[in-house]
Amino acid sequence: MSKVFEPSDSLILNDIMRYRRDVRGNRFIDKALLDETLEQILDAALLAPSVGYSQPWKFVVIQDESIKQQVFDSFCEETKHASTLFSGKKEQDYQQLKLEGIIEAPINIAVFYQPSQKPVLGQTSMAEMGKFSVVCAIQNMWLMARALNVGIGWVSIIDPQKVKEAVNAPQTSELIGYLCVGYVSEFLAEPELKQTGWNKQKHKQDIVFKNKF
Amino acid sequence: MSKVFEPSDSLILNDIMRYRRDVRGNRFIDKALLDETLEQILDAALLAPSVGYSQPWKFVVIQDESIKQQVFDSFCEETKHASTLFSGKKEQDYQQLKLEGIIEAPINIAVFYQPSQKPVLGQTSMAEMGKFSVVCAIQNMWLMARALNVGIGWVSIIDPQKVKEAVNAPQTSELIGYLCVGYVSEFLAEPELKQTGWNKQKHKQDIVFKNKF
Repeated sequence: MSKVFEPSDSLILNDIMRYRRDVRGNRFIDKALLDETLEQILDAALLAPSVGYSQPWKFVVIQDESIKQQVFDSFCEETKHASTLFSGKKEQDYQQLKLEGIIEAPINIAVFYQPSQKPVLGQTSMAEMGKFSVVCAIQNMWLMARALNVGIGWVSIIDPQKVKEAVNAPQTSELIGYLCVGYVSEFLAEPELKQTGWNKQKHKQDIVFKNKF
Repeated sequence: MSKVFEPSDSLILNDIMRYRRDVRGNRFIDKALLDETLEQILDAALLAPSVGYSQPWKFVVIQDESIKQQVFDSFCEETKHASTLFSGKKEQDYQQLKLEGIIEAPINIAVFYQPSQKPVLGQTSMAEMGKFSVVCAIQNMWLMARALNVGIGWVSIIDPQKVKEAVNAPQTSELIGYLCVGYVSEFLAEPELKQTGWNKQKHKQDIVFKNKF
């Protein structure tokens, strides 16, 4: 018999999704993450779907301050360049946002995709499916963290090559996500980039189509 | 005050993740999906994280049989080629697997990434972040469907260009996932590719590292 979920279960899931936030360094608090909690978050990753059951993921749990510093240095370099891509008020707004929590979060997790040398079932027509499996694992972690009242922030303004060097990753692996993990002072009621007016929420009727665009 | 989840909530989430399956045509039953249920699944997508709050997703809900047939034709062509990439027993096993439920599922959803013409906050160093946001939306849908006792199968053995043509997608958009959605006769206790021995489950100690590889 397959497990049957109750309507209340989907409401809880909806709440977990709705109250999940991207957490940056101004919200993490100085409190160590329990080992058991970290394991629950990693276990959620391993329950993600993967193309051809390939499980093409690797996770590096980082607490070493010198590694965090190397990643933070890469962020500083990349964000300096990035801010120049925006102009006028957007450039000012960009510079005022806190966009990572690498040092503040007690745990960082670098998540890699390790391509297979053999053909992978389901990945023969769409080569990116392996990477997408790793993203599903990250989203599982993000949701499980929120259900455990733990914050995660995904930092993408970094040079993947520098992160790979910092953690001694094989050249054949690809960095998919760099996560900052820890307890928080608060979860914002809404996404910060919505609250601050950086972008507006899109309406469902503008992004859902019936049969054809 | 931030929402605080109870330990029982994370257990429910763990169950939803654990009992989620990739569903193929031999499990979908001939029963229309309630509109309200479809909306709940789409709403879950819109709660996903997106880089720079860019919400770069578009969803095409497909019920038109002629569109489904075009996508199925593409699957047949792609899978014929794919099966030749495997050899010996793997080739035989491949041919015996049912790998999609395009026609059987009452609803198909094609999920697209629509790149921004302007720079996107957070996507300036890792260009694939926009696509990864769309994958997070798909994983949210998959989990919400399971919580509603609805099955989803992700079909990737298709030519993205043919799917784009079938639904009249803009040339600038990119197909990320093609989902088959419907009620099921059962959810398998374990991933089918694990049960049939196609691939083995990886051990946590082989994929989680401390600080460095």
